[in-house]
This record gives sequence, C-alpha cells and structure tokens, in this order.
Amino acid sequence: MPKPSARSQAAPASPIRRLYPLAVEANKRGKKVYHLNIGQPDIPTPQAFMQGVRQARIEVLDYAPSPGISEAVEAMVRYYADHGLQVAKEEILITIGGSEGITFALSIACDPGDHVLVPEPFYPNYLGYARLTNVEITPITTHRKDGFHLPPRQEIEGLITPRTKAILFSHPGNPTGVVYTPAELEMLVALALKHDLFIISDEVYREFVYDGVHKSLLSFPEVRDRVILVDSISKRLSACGARVGALVSHNKEVMAAALKCATIRLSAPTFEQLGLVAFMADPNHKKVVEEMIGEYKVRRDLFCRELLAIPGVTFRVPEGAFYVMMGLPVDDAEAFIRWMLTDYPGPETVMLAPGAGFYRTEGCGKDEARAAYVLKTEDLKRACSVLAEGLRLYARAAAPAGRG
Amino acid sequence: MPKPSARSQAAPASPIRRLYPLAVEANKRGKKVYHLNIGQPDIPTPQAFMQGVRQARIEVLDYAPSPGISEAVEAMVRYYADHGLQVAKEEILITIGGSEGITFALSIACDPGDHVLVPEPFYPNYLGYARLTNVEITPITTHRKDGFHLPPRQEIEGLITPRTKAILFSHPGNPTGVVYTPAELEMLVALALKHDLFIISDEVYREFVYDGVHKSLLSFPEVRDRVILVDSISKRLSACGARVGALVSHNKEVMAAALKCATIRLSAPTFEQLGLVAFMADPNHKKVVEEMIGEYKVRRDLFCRELLAIPGVTFRVPEGAFYVMMGLPVDDAEAFIRWMLTDYPGPETVMLAPGAGFYRTEGCGKDEARAAYVLKTEDLKRACSVLAEGLRLYARAAAPAGRG
Repeated sequence: MPKPSARSQAAPASPIRRLYPLAVEANKRGKKVYHLNIGQPDIPTPQAFMQGVRQARIEVLDYAPSPGISEAVEAMVRYYADHGLQVAKEEILITIGGSEGITFALSIACDPGDHVLVPEPFYPNYLGYARLTNVEITPITTHRKDGFHLPPRQEIEGLITPRTKAILFSHPGNPTGVVYTPAELEMLVALALKHDLFIISDEVYREFVYDGVHKSLLSFPEVRDRVILVDSISKRLSACGARVGALVSHNKEVMAAALKCATIRLSAPTFEQLGLVAFMADPNHKKVVEEMIGEYKVRRDLFCRELLAIPGVTFRVPEGAFYVMMGLPVDDAEAFIRWMLTDYPGPETVMLAPGAGFYRTEGCGKDEARAAYVLKTEDLKRACSVLAEGLRLYARAAAPAGRG
Repeated sequence: MPKPSARSQAAPASPIRRLYPLAVEANKRGKKVYHLNIGQPDIPTPQAFMQGVRQARIEVLDYAPSPGISEAVEAMVRYYADHGLQVAKEEILITIGGSEGITFALSIACDPGDHVLVPEPFYPNYLGYARLTNVEITPITTHRKDGFHLPPRQEIEGLITPRTKAILFSHPGNPTGVVYTPAELEMLVALALKHDLFIISDEVYREFVYDGVHKSLLSFPEVRDRVILVDSISKRLSACGARVGALVSHNKEVMAAALKCATIRLSAPTFEQLGLVAFMADPNHKKVVEEMIGEYKVRRDLFCRELLAIPGVTFRVPEGAFYVMMGLPVDDAEAFIRWMLTDYPGPETVMLAPGAGFYRTEGCGKDEARAAYVLKTEDLKRACSVLAEGLRLYARAAAPAGRG
C-alpha cells in the first residue's frame, strides 16, 4: 500500500484539534461549553449580503472571471476608498477567503526554501500555508508583558538572512489583538526597504480597533511596490463561510503573478461575491459594520474587566481584533484546558485555545491561552466566572496533599 | 523593488489566454464569435440547485466544516451509490472544485520533486497544479490516430522511475473525449500495483459517455487503497461557478492527509454546498442529468458529422466528455486560430483552443485544436461551416503566389 507523502503527514496537529473531541464529549454529557476557543463571530451576517445571494439572477452558474466578478472588484475599490485608500481595479484580485490570499502572497514573495519573518504568537494556519508553499517561517518572538508589540529593530534585523524575502503579520493581530503603532509600522517599512523585503499585511480585522487608529500598510508610499495586502470579508461581514477575500498590491508584477495563481484555480465562488456586491450597494453598509464594532468594543471592555479580576490571569488590554492572549496561573495551559473539559464539575465549562499552538519557538506560550470574545456579554460574564472557579479548583486539585 | 518569486513568474501562459484578447477585439468590431475554445456548458443549472441556494436558512454564515457540510457529504454518498459505488461518509471530502481536489491529491501522493505520469494531451491546468505543489509531470504521449487511447504497457513502464509516485488522468478525457476501455483500465491497475503508484482519477465527466461504458477506478478492489478520485459538480450540474467538488478515497491515511489539507484552508463555500444538497434531494435529479447527457450526445453526433465533412479535418469520434481534439490541415494551428480572429472576413468567426497547449512534449499538437461542443446544435452547425470556409480561405491566403 503506497504511503501518503511525508509533507502531507507532517502537517501540524493543532492543540485545539486535539482538545475539540473532549468538548464534543462534554457537550454529550449535557454540559454547556462556552467556546472561547474559536474566532467565529456570532453576529448575524448583514441582510443586504444575504439578499444579494438570494436574489442573484443566474441561469447558467458559469465560471466567474479568475480575478473576481467585475462588480465585486469594484465593490472592493469603493470599500478601500471608504477607508481613504486609493486602489485601482486592476490592483485587486478576489480570493477564496484570506486563506487563499496568504497562500498566493507567500508563493509570489518566496521561492521554495525562502524564509518569511512572522511575529509570534501568530495565527497557526500561517504555518499550514507556509508548508503548502514550501516556505520557512522565522518567528520574531513578542511578549505578553509588552502587549505583544514588536521588539527593537536590531533584534528583528538579527533574524534576516539572504533567504528572507518577506515579513508577514496580521494587523490588528490574531491571536494578540495588538495594533501596531505608527512608529512600529515605520520601523517595519524601513526594514523592508533596507533588506529588500515584501510586506504581507493581513488586515482582515481592519475595523476591529478600539484604542488608537489603524493605519493600513497600503498607506505608506515608500513601500508602494512592496506591500501585498491580504483581506477578507469573513470577520467584518460576519461571513466566514463566504470564502471571499482579496489580494491587493500596487506592484504590477505582483498582480500579474497573482493573476496566474488565480487562473490555475479558475474562480472564486459566485454567489458570495454577489453577496459582497449587494452589501456594498447598501447605503447603510458603513453603519452596519460600525454598530458591530461598537458591540465588540463593549464585549472587549467587559471581558477584559472580568478577566483581570481573576487572580493570576495576566495580559495587557489588546487594542484590536477580538482576542485576548492571556497568561494563566498554571504551568501547562493545555493540561488546564483539558481538565476544564473533562473534570471541571457542574453544568457548564469553558474552552480556550492553548497558547503554545500560536508560537513557532519551542517552549513559548505554555502558560498562555487565547480567548475570542465572540459571545454575547452575559455569556462572556458567565464564562469568566466559570474560568475563575476552574482555576481555583484546579490549583487545589494540583496542590500536593499535606501542603496548603 | 523586490521581484516576485521565480516560480510565480514561471507559471505557464496558455495559448488560449494569448488569443483571448483577439476574440474580445473581434467582438468589439461587431463580430459574432462562436466560442468552441472553452469547456463552459451553456445548459441552465438545475432549478433544484438554485432553489437550494436561494432558500438556505442561514443567520450567521459561519465556517462550514472543513471536510464539507455533513448533508453535502451525505449527498455525495448517495450520488456514488446511484452509480453503484459504495463509499462511506468519511471517505469523501468536499473540495473547492475539482481544481482543489487535484492540488490536494498531488500534495498527498507526492513530495516536492516527485513525478506523476499523465497521458498527454491533458488538461493544461494540471501543469499549474503540479507547479504549485512542486511535482514534475512525465507525459505519456497518446495519438490522434489511436483516438488518444493508451500506448502499450511497456511504453508506459519505460517512463517510470523511483520518483514516480502516481498516475493522473481525466476519465472521460479532457481534451480528448477518450473513455478508456476495461482492458486499458486493467493495465493501469496492474501498473499501479507493480510499481507502487497512486492512481489519481479525475472523473468529473463521469456521466458524459456516449459509446461504451464508464467504469470508475473506485470499482477495482485490487487498488482500493491506491485510488484517489477527484470529482466536481461543475460539468454534470452545469455549475462551474459553484466551486464544489470532492476528493474520495478508501485509503484512511489518504483521507487523514486530505483532512489536514482541508483544515488549513478552513472550508469550501457554503451556499453552493447547500445547492448540491437540494439538487440531490430532488427526486428528478437523475432524469435532469440524463436529459442533459442526451442533449450532449445529439451535439456530439451532429458536431462530429459536420467536422468530418470538412476537407483535411481528422479525428476519431470521441466516446465521452464534450470535446473533440482534431487535426487541422495547417502547419500551425495557433496561427490559423489567430487568423480566424483577426483576418477571417464576414460577420461571424470561430475560436478554437490550440492543440499544443495540451501537450507537455515540445512540438506535439502543433496541427491540432480542441473544440468544446457546448453550444446549441444550430450554432454548432454554423460554427462548422464558418470553420470550413476559414480553412479554405486560409489555405488560399497561405498558398505562394503563382502556384495553384
């Protein structure tokens, strides 16, 4: 019997996936599990998007154009204009979610064996896209005590080799919620110029900023030809299942290469592109997103307040996205998260994402966990009190007999 | 300014893409162009599919499960059962079109640098998927005079090296329309067993068989663990824009690897999966496909009859799919196809796909062209008479003055 390739076997088994069956079992035992482990928004997808899908006039569902349906690309042009970014139609390509955008960007920036810098902790699927494209990730370690802001420039420069072709980051950050300051962005821009790097900026959480201001990497004229923006409607339209994203660059050669990538996979799904068109045609579209962001701000404030009241939980309040990467008063966060699913008593429990899964550097994040505040405020409040009680009981269970 | 990677520059520029702008220009000059160059069916997508999309009850368009929406996978189980194939739910993964299925299959069967055998002429995007996954294609040349049936076994065996990990083919064939005979399939099965190969069988044209019987590679028990079936609803549901396909294997390790690939890209589009579910729930679904196949048989018969009446056009009538790969009485088919778009007089013209684009071996297919009979019979008839006239005028234009 032939064996699947080594590369397909080597793909990472994420800790969340290891733990997920335990959550399913807990649920079967009648337990309510507060899922703080996944960034799946609970907010309804805007009606205008749904109407756009339902009312699509299609007789033959033929291939959409590879760079995207013309009206969908135009909708993205208007979207960027709303955000003060002048982007031409031919500088945008509709992708099958942000996932495909990252894969294309890595393929374009790197030949097999090339390296890309990524601040860690980072979105674990970056590792999957890098494996798929035979690109090596060089982590830039950032720290909870710094709110996961970037280390000094010389520390990053020490990681750059002749094979380093790009720096990739999410901005605002998943799993950290960090929003880089103008000074940090200028430092990255200077690094890209000095070391001839592409900047792959994953801005799918663009609107999810509660403190400070988000500055798109597209707004830096010095790196006009170096920036490859990866975008997605998943979060801002609460439409993760749409699989509609965009790759954007002012660099003509990059766009030509992106078009080649897109041509090979033929087209992105049609109905969801029409949903995007209808959403952007809705005169209320900005208000819809603003209201959603308002709701997330309320959640962040409440969630952080509740979390910080739990003894031993440590973090700096994140500026954006909808995640908190927190330190827990335990040695092994994964063991604690597992215990919450298997041993925590009572009718409810909480699932978090183990922190180590977001680091490339061995040993980092062992006492950390990521929570996504994608639940209603009353549920977030309840989840925090369950978490507090869990940590209390876990500490007691772990204390050696005779001590304490 | 940083340069895009060599690999993203190396992606092939297909002859169709070179010629397409000329068709657009011809159209702008008021010319009607019969597009025989692309396999985009003109038959309306079934109403049941469309209703399934329109009537989807979704409040939050969240990520679909990575292996596919449960009901969509079950729909595929029933679909295979309709075709006499017993496939379990966990042996099917919904992919983003057949394109993603091929990419996954190549990643699973091959490590970077491994080789895969592919009978040529073949679907040109296979080369794109192979580049993306760093796999080398070793062509098995087949010939028009043989109706593109396979060469003798020893000829194929001579191409196998220790790095050959799989054989990939479309069955029925694009661009050839060939349907392999049971003897040919048995030969491929024996080869796979002897040389420890995976068989990647692209059966998206399964129902498009007009002569003989289609036997799925899944029906050979000896290679139960070796077959990776790639499938798609694009052609049989006239829904190329749906981007819904499937990867099927009885090999548990292959399915585990496929799930890892699928998890990285999160999910396939939701609405179109629900369209598939609704289509398969329609008690008339078999009849809908049968009627469509009936229409294609009428087209094939008419188109082949008309083509064979054109002096110098040569081919053996294809058994399946909806293509004819024909020899033209010209030295350079691409030059003739270009001439038809730029110089052919009158209000109408025809666009074909140059044959060379379907071969990996340099020099093959220069006098060939592929036509897709995806137009109504009256249009096919008209296109053939335009083609006949074009060949007549082209021969005259090319004849040296003073001769003839």
